[in-house]
Amino acid sequence: MPKESLDDLRYELALASRILAHEGVLDAFGHVSLRHPADPGRYFLPRSRSPELVEPADVLEYTLDSEPVKAPAERQFAERVIHGCIYEARPDVMAVCHHHAAAVMPFAIAGVPIVPVFHLGAAGGEDMPFWDQRDEFGDTNLLVVKPEEGRSLAQALGSHPAVLMNRHGATVVGRDIREMVSRAIFMCQNTQYQLQAHLLGKVVPLSSGETKLAGTINSMPTVTGRTWEYWTMRLDRAGMLPKGRVGSRKPPKPVARPVKAKRKRS
Amino acid sequence: MPKESLDDLRYELALASRILAHEGVLDAFGHVSLRHPADPGRYFLPRSRSPELVEPADVLEYTLDSEPVKAPAERQFAERVIHGCIYEARPDVMAVCHHHAAAVMPFAIAGVPIVPVFHLGAAGGEDMPFWDQRDEFGDTNLLVVKPEEGRSLAQALGSHPAVLMNRHGATVVGRDIREMVSRAIFMCQNTQYQLQAHLLGKVVPLSSGETKLAGTINSMPTVTGRTWEYWTMRLDRAGMLPKGRVGSRKPPKPVARPVKAKRKRS
Amino acid sequence: MPKESLDDLRYELALASRILAHEGVLDAFGHVSLRHPADPGRYFLPRSRSPELVEPADVLEYTLDSEPVKAPAERQFAERVIHGCIYEARPDVMAVCHHHAAAVMPFAIAGVPIVPVFHLGAAGGEDMPFWDQRDEFGDTNLLVVKPEEGRSLAQALGSHPAVLMNRHGATVVGRDIREMVSRAIFMCQNTQYQLQAHLLGKVVPLSSGETKLAGTINSMPTVTGRTWEYWTMRLDRAGMLPKGRVGSRKPPKPVARPVKAKRKRS
Amino acid sequence: MPKESLDDLRYELALASRILAHEGVLDAFGHVSLRHPADPGRYFLPRSRSPELVEPADVLEYTLDSEPVKAPAERQFAERVIHGCIYEARPDVMAVCHHHAAAVMPFAIAGVPIVPVFHLGAAGGEDMPFWDQRDEFGDTNLLVVKPEEGRSLAQALGSHPAVLMNRHGATVVGRDIREMVSRAIFMCQNTQYQLQAHLLGKVVPLSSGETKLAGTINSMPTVTGRTWEYWTMRLDRAGMLPKGRVGSRKPPKPVARPVKAKRKRS
Repeated sequence: MPKESLDDLRYELALASRILAHEGVLDAFGHVSLRHPADPGRYFLPRSRSPELVEPADVLEYTLDSEPVKAPAERQFAERVIHGCIYEARPDVMAVCHHHAAAVMPFAIAGVPIVPVFHLGAAGGEDMPFWDQRDEFGDTNLLVVKPEEGRSLAQALGSHPAVLMNRHGATVVGRDIREMVSRAIFMCQNTQYQLQAHLLGKVVPLSSGETKLAGTINSMPTVTGRTWEYWTMRLDRAGMLPKGRVGSRKPPKPVARPVKAKRKRS
Repeated sequence: MPKESLDDLRYELALASRILAHEGVLDAFGHVSLRHPADPGRYFLPRSRSPELVEPADVLEYTLDSEPVKAPAERQFAERVIHGCIYEARPDVMAVCHHHAAAVMPFAIAGVPIVPVFHLGAAGGEDMPFWDQRDEFGDTNLLVVKPEEGRSLAQALGSHPAVLMNRHGATVVGRDIREMVSRAIFMCQNTQYQLQAHLLGKVVPLSSGETKLAGTINSMPTVTGRTWEYWTMRLDRAGMLPKGRVGSRKPPKPVARPVKAKRKRS
Repeated sequence: MPKESLDDLRYELALASRILAHEGVLDAFGHVSLRHPADPGRYFLPRSRSPELVEPADVLEYTLDSEPVKAPAERQFAERVIHGCIYEARPDVMAVCHHHAAAVMPFAIAGVPIVPVFHLGAAGGEDMPFWDQRDEFGDTNLLVVKPEEGRSLAQALGSHPAVLMNRHGATVVGRDIREMVSRAIFMCQNTQYQLQAHLLGKVVPLSSGETKLAGTINSMPTVTGRTWEYWTMRLDRAGMLPKGRVGSRKPPKPVARPVKAKRKRS
Repeated sequence: MPKESLDDLRYELALASRILAHEGVLDAFGHVSLRHPADPGRYFLPRSRSPELVEPADVLEYTLDSEPVKAPAERQFAERVIHGCIYEARPDVMAVCHHHAAAVMPFAIAGVPIVPVFHLGAAGGEDMPFWDQRDEFGDTNLLVVKPEEGRSLAQALGSHPAVLMNRHGATVVGRDIREMVSRAIFMCQNTQYQLQAHLLGKVVPLSSGETKLAGTINSMPTVTGRTWEYWTMRLDRAGMLPKGRVGSRKPPKPVARPVKAKRKRS
């Protein structure tokens, strides 16, 4: 795989981290990873740093047992097993985000299931599983750091697009980075609307059929390309775009130049 | 109709799209259209693009069956039948906005009627109809793309200023672009206040008489002109005004130069 | 009274309008007035314009029957009788603000009394009266435009610091502009906290004694001077200060130069 | 202790004040102090000023009975006994913040206990005490200004990380400034999530063991260093960093140069 494509991928990963921070999914914490497009046994994850600050040069490469390919000088994310274990268990997944978004926390605390309540919320699927670290591991500091904790979480995720983690947050996956980013953002909107509909007295979710049909249309590149342009422009307007590709200062046009991996799949 | 007037109209449409995005009615999705002021059988709608990014040059012209007058190179909005079918059914309507504003979503999900709870909320009328796509079309992806879906929605709208779309959003109309923009923004405020009054224990709506009287005063050009100045200045301060008219970079003064159509009516 | 002092006063009034807009009390609508410091039979009110846009040059002078001293070229506020009638009825009042702040609307709609729930909320007094225009005037467009409507509102206000207007908004008064601005802003915070405490299950208000003591301390110039500095700096940071005094571009230092009237009273 | 270290400390204190203001813990009111790292009988507190405006040059030095070491020309905080009395009672405490954050007010008003509902909320401890000034002192203006009021509050705080003050606010402490800042910010997030989980119907707190384990990990320098970088960058992006050290304009790099005191402890 040409070096230039990997540079694009590092830029794309920094961009996704910053978009998710700017749109309120990530804050000081949370992390985003991408599977290596040419080597399914590896993935990319930034060094330990708030996602809004991630630069392409911060991106490290890992094997699926979450060991760095090259020993880094920088601090690494303690919870990187979340990513490794999910890539191990889910060959279809190309992008993962673990977060503590304010919008989903009330559901993760109350243990109330999130259901799709509007067409864009269908991206989260019909029923979203819960994973309570306490069930299997007793009292912990709630961080997912041991391989067995990562595997347990991946098992709870199953074939779903996301899993809620009690008293902790959520983990969202996608078949490409744009699908995952869209899913994470619309899942947050969905929970806000669900909470308020609940306060109005009645939550009427999408039917199974609607969830399937709306979920399909909303993960199509025509839709995720449009939201990607929108969120990128918002980030740009806020002066928060990542620096250009490693070794360069000029950012690639994100919409016009998807990374190689995506081109192959589409 | 002189080309210059159409340029003004394209600018006005881009401006309205951006105002509605900046004030929280539109986000990555949603769209705004204007009926052709000289040809009631045509309307203007931007190409498929997030409304905050729309430029005058993005505006396309359509016949009422939602076919483009000139085949465009760009992607078109899939839901443009919403606009065509409403212009067909409602000769009084000159502007349409379809949106998924966060403020109205809880009501669209809970199926709770929106009632006017403050004088500016009267712009939404006394009782706002619901349209549930599922009733007539069964399981869909919830997008309104077929002519029969558009016609069904227009029928539910009837002679009302707005219609709520279950698990999807809302569509708002107006006799001119400023009335429609005001209506859409104040409808969002109205629902936020209604939800919170509900949480306090009691929602006391305007009487029929108050709704009629307040609705009338608030759609007068003296009022919609003042809000238009306010929202335009806010957009300007955020650095988000559209580029100037097509073929020019200098934006027309939006308040001082209403489009021809409005001049005729006032 | 020297012309320079009136220029300062016009600047102060524009500044107060913009502070209240920037802090979320005013939006496209609402207005702020000041009694003439040397002539209690007159007051100052801007021309009809969104308060965030008011400049010193927009400020007009009125008699207490709300007639302009000099016939203005510009549009005037339709609701100016609110100000005239309150200055007529309340010789102690030097500043008035009428608003539809999002924070108070749920209470104005539900008819739930606002009670002081934290020390800064004591500025609103122990019990705040309601005024329902419908009671005396039947169905109206809810605007307060007739002298008898203004007088009725002033009567409901009585000797209180503020009055809630059902399905419309609120009107707040003060013995000087800074006291009134502080009161309006903290009243909004108070209602937000009261609503959320209600959702938690229990609203425990300040006692009568606490309300009196906290209300007294919080209207002292040492406190209102500090908040004035804070809100002015926030406005400045947002690039939203009014232009300098009429005929000049250099804004007076707001904290260091209170208008003459206040100097006399302190 | 070298003068340069105290300059760093003054800068750090101004930075913490501004971070807490920018992240929504402080507003026009509230204050932050630091114990003197070389002299446990003294502490540093800014002059009376909104925390978002504090500069290093505003920082004054106090003895534990809250008397200024040098009589200042500027106004002092009336509530400084909060700081002096807590430093007196709690030798382990190196930093104190008193605030009226919007997020905690509903709990301070309703008297509902705050419980840790997510891992980062564990920083507030398992059960947070209440202090009602009325209990011991009857009707007051709710300001904590007398030494006996300060001592009573410190007693209620006991060995806890924070104390809620009924109808007033909260006071948070830490073993260093970064721990205290993290604790204050995450305590606000915790209450917001707790309120919303309550609205969803069920609040499931962390177990005792989880609270202890998560509380420990989240006060480690690796975690508080990361959040400090994040909040500092956000402040910087907003153009709100304090001016450089006293006598200089160049701000020290906050992450790279912790004050001496912290170096010693780590």
